[in-house]
Order: sequence, then structure tokens, then C-alpha cells
Amino acid sequence: MATVAELLQPVEADLEALLSDLRSLIGAGHPILQAAAEHLFSAGGKRLRPGIVLLISRALAPDGELSARHRRLAEITEMIHTASLVHDDVVDGASTRRGVDTVHSRFNHRVAVLAGDFLFAQASWHLANLDDLEVVKLLSRVIMDLADGEVRQGLFRYDTGQSFETYLEKSYCKTASLIANSARAAGVLSGLAESQLDALYRFGRQLGLAFQVVDDILDFTGSDQQLGKPAASDLASGYLTAPALYALQERPALAGLIEREFSQEGDLEQALELVRGSEAIPRSRVLAEGFANEAREALTWLPASECRSALLALPEFVLSRLY
Amino acid sequence: MATVAELLQPVEADLEALLSDLRSLIGAGHPILQAAAEHLFSAGGKRLRPGIVLLISRALAPDGELSARHRRLAEITEMIHTASLVHDDVVDGASTRRGVDTVHSRFNHRVAVLAGDFLFAQASWHLANLDDLEVVKLLSRVIMDLADGEVRQGLFRYDTGQSFETYLEKSYCKTASLIANSARAAGVLSGLAESQLDALYRFGRQLGLAFQVVDDILDFTGSDQQLGKPAASDLASGYLTAPALYALQERPALAGLIEREFSQEGDLEQALELVRGSEAIPRSRVLAEGFANEAREALTWLPASECRSALLALPEFVLSRLY
Repeated sequence: MATVAELLQPVEADLEALLSDLRSLIGAGHPILQAAAEHLFSAGGKRLRPGIVLLISRALAPDGELSARHRRLAEITEMIHTASLVHDDVVDGASTRRGVDTVHSRFNHRVAVLAGDFLFAQASWHLANLDDLEVVKLLSRVIMDLADGEVRQGLFRYDTGQSFETYLEKSYCKTASLIANSARAAGVLSGLAESQLDALYRFGRQLGLAFQVVDDILDFTGSDQQLGKPAASDLASGYLTAPALYALQERPALAGLIEREFSQEGDLEQALELVRGSEAIPRSRVLAEGFANEAREALTWLPASECRSALLALPEFVLSRLY
Repeated sequence: MATVAELLQPVEADLEALLSDLRSLIGAGHPILQAAAEHLFSAGGKRLRPGIVLLISRALAPDGELSARHRRLAEITEMIHTASLVHDDVVDGASTRRGVDTVHSRFNHRVAVLAGDFLFAQASWHLANLDDLEVVKLLSRVIMDLADGEVRQGLFRYDTGQSFETYLEKSYCKTASLIANSARAAGVLSGLAESQLDALYRFGRQLGLAFQVVDDILDFTGSDQQLGKPAASDLASGYLTAPALYALQERPALAGLIEREFSQEGDLEQALELVRGSEAIPRSRVLAEGFANEAREALTWLPASECRSALLALPEFVLSRLY
């Protein structure tokens, strides 16, 4: 099984240039923002989102070359993603992300608000200057979905009556929308036909959903160290994801523990046992596999290239985090 | 001298509809955001920014009627302004604004981040759907300027070496850009020629600068009650505005007090005396009057109407807050 570094190898140099651009763009002239930018855009992250935009852009170019506008689109994608993470960490009160201090815990919440706003503002400015109204609409939809998803997530905390649909909509808003709409936007900049744009969108959407479900499974199966945050932290915070929602169907006793917000000694451990002892994890895995397969199938029409191979291998890579 | 309510009377019904729209748009389906929206968009505020967009829009229409797109532009203007206030209050740690609790002190900083992001996101989405790339560029420039101004303001705190130019640039970014670019955008939606668009921009820019200088003077001359925040709070926080910068030219002793961040007993009072005993306040007044006159002159070409009269009286109204 390929690693993410292997999959992104065709665009590795592009990604390095992009991160270097972002560091200088955000930090320029402001020591605190500079420190936040170093913290946010240092090496180490997977950069899957701009990586996907870059792979698609190169896969669509007859000569495999990247246009300045496609490069900018990848940057905008990463700016929006990062801005949203920085603010969400403030809203959720998260102190670490992937084992690294969040901006508001490393600096303070004022710097986090400022850095996030600055990133959103830069993204919005560069977006307008791509000079393509369709692309502006796609990415502004993403910004709206991200805010909407964060609101929904807060709204349904500890709500055992929420539908599976609610969970999928939240996952679309918070994770899949950015990948789907930026994939489509890359196609718009390449002048593709509507049916191909739809396929790019579908690839991003299903991949994003697979990614989110896998993340949600790992919250139950991973160790603190693997996750870079405390295990089962979603459940403990009242965010009910695929495993919890499936388990609720099998184990009605789980609802009581969640509804009293794990307020009694041992509640959380008991809830975890109920989830792990049910079919919830295997069922979630099947769900993720379905999304991953649909993602792969959506892009088989791409002309043969190194980038196409990487894109088609991505859904399998997303699933491989489970093994 | 006319009151602001009298000046905005031609668009009073429009403004009420706009606030009602914004309350339902932001709060829909989320109890906490609903409360924040009620707090932000309740009656009482001056709503000068959307008021100006509405006055210009009606002044430019042959029949004085308002198009749906002009109405939407006014809403977007108010959303961006409010989002920026809510986040700036977090960044600046301000607990009241015009005598009312800020969102983060009334609720908490998480709600403030979320409400601001939601407003920015809605603004960006509605902006894209105005379907005019030039308008998208103008307003995304505003969003960028607002973030940039907030960064600059933090950067130059207690910096007695900053130029007057730096202060004016910061004031442009934080106050004038929104009024200038939204005035121009109203003209774009009305299909005006470039020279008229420039005039609308200039009106908004000079009015915004006049407004900011007046605000900065009032920080030195107003009482706590008039200001709705502690008097001289800008100076105390190290934000050096026109009066402080003029006073520094006349009273070199002021620099030492500022540079040690008023750390010794009586420093702030002594600094205030130095400013008030200098020509700084009269000179700041002359500066504001110059901007106000330029704003008025920029719009004399408008065809006669109730809205034109209100627009031409606005600069004088801004100055009247000083008397």
C-alpha cells in the first residue's frame, strides 16, 4: 500500500512551493502572524486538499503542466481549510490537533481569530482575482458550508434522536464540500464539460465522506498517540458519528449514557464498550468502503498519467488508515 | 442640524426590512446564533453603512426605486461590517461597544467566533450570487482591508515613531474602505460610468476618514457615557490616533509616557493633559472638516432628490458629533 507521500509525489515540488508561498503571504510584516503562519504551514502536514487540486490540475493538462490559476486555486483551498481549522479549534476548545498545539493554545484565542480572519480574507481576495464567477461561487459555497457545518455540529451535540442523514450532511459540510467543490473548480479552470465537472465533484464528495467516516472510526479504535488527541474525544464531547449512531440502533442503553452527557463515573467507558461490542465499527467500515469505491469510479475516465494513478489510489489510501 | 434618523428617513423602511432579514438569516435554526443575531441586529444602531448604500442606490435610480440586488448589497455591507466588529472585539478584548455588551462578553468568545464566521460566510455567498465579478472584487478587497487594518492596528500599538500616513492607512482599512467600496459597488450595479464610480468611491472614502477622525477626537473629548466605553480608551490601549500623533509633534514629553505604556501612576492622566493642552484637537478637527468637505463635493453631480439631499448633508452630520 502506497503512503500519502508516495501518492503526492507527482506534485511534491508544487506543494513545497505552495507552503512557502503561504508562509510568506500570511506572515509578511507581522511578527505574531508570522509565528502563527510558521506553525500552521510548516512541513509535516499531509496537505491532502491542495494535493488533490494539484493532482487533478496536472491530470487535466495535456502537457501535465500547471497553470498559475490552478496553482492559486490550490493555495486558496489550503487557506480556507486552515482558516476554518484555526477558528473551529477555538469554537470547539480543542487544545491539540494531530498531536500539535492548536494556534489558540500555542498563542491565544485573539491571535487565532486574527490569523483565521486574515487567511479567510486573503482567500476571498485571491478567489475574486481568479476572475471566474463560477469558481467564486463554488468556493464561497464551501465557506458557507464550513460555517454551517460547525453550527450544525454544535446544534446536535448529545442528541441521540438525530438522523443518520444529519450526520452525513454535517460531514459533507465540514469535510466533503471543500474537496468536492475545489475539485470541480479545477475542472472549471481547465474548461471541462458539465459531465466531467460533475464527475470531479462526485470524486471529491465521496472521497471526503470516506475520509470523514474513517476519521470517525479511528476516534473509537485508535490510541491517543495515533490520533494526536485523546481517543474517543468525539463521543466524550457529544459529537455522535457513524459508529455511535449505528451502535444506538443496536444498543438502546447507549442513549441514556449520552443523554446524561456521561455525567456519572464510568459512563464514557461503558458507552465505548457498547459501541465496540456492537456491529457499529464493521458497519461504519462498509460505509467508508462504499464511499471510497464511488470516489474511485468517478475518475476512471481521466487520461492515463502518473497523476491519474495517484488520484485513483487515493480512496484506497484513505481506507488503509483503518488497517 | 439634522439628526441621523432624519437623514436616513428616505430609506428608513428599507433599513427596517434589512435588519429583519438579517435577524432571520443569521439566527435560523440555531438558538445561540439567534440570540447573537437579536443582540446584533436589534433596533437602535445607526446603520449608517447600509443606509449610505441604500441612499445612493435610490439616488441613482430614475424612479427612486430600489432593485433587489441593491438591497442585497446593503445587506452584505452590514453583514461584513458586523462580522468584523464581532471578531475585532474579541481580538481587542473590548467588553462594550456604544454602551452595549459585546457578543463575546455577553455570550463567550466561541459564540463570537462562530457568529462572525457565519456572517462572513453568508456575506461571501450572497456576494458571489450577485453575479457581478467587479462587485465581488470590490467587497473582497474590503474584507482584506478590514483584516489588514486590524493587523496594522495591533502592530503599531504604543509606537510613537509611526507616521501620520500609517494612521490614515489604518483608518482607511478599518473604516473608509467598506464605505468607499460599497458606494462604488452600488454604482456598478446601476451601470454608471467610470468617472461617476470614482466619485462614489471618493465620497465614501473621504466620509469614512472624516468619520474615523471624529471618532478619534471624541475618544479624547467625550465622557464615558457619551462614548459608551471608557474615555481615552484608544490612548490607554496604545492606539495612537490623530490627536495623539499631532500632540507628539508639539509635546515631545508625551512619547516617553506612551513608550513605557503608561506603566506609572498618573501617566495616562498626564498624557491626556498634554494632548488636551496642545493644538492637537483643533488640528484634528480641521483634518476631519477637510475630509468632510471633499466627501460632499464628490457627490454634487447627483440629480436632485430627497436621497441626494441626505447624502450631501451626511458629511456635515458627521462633523456635528463634535459640537
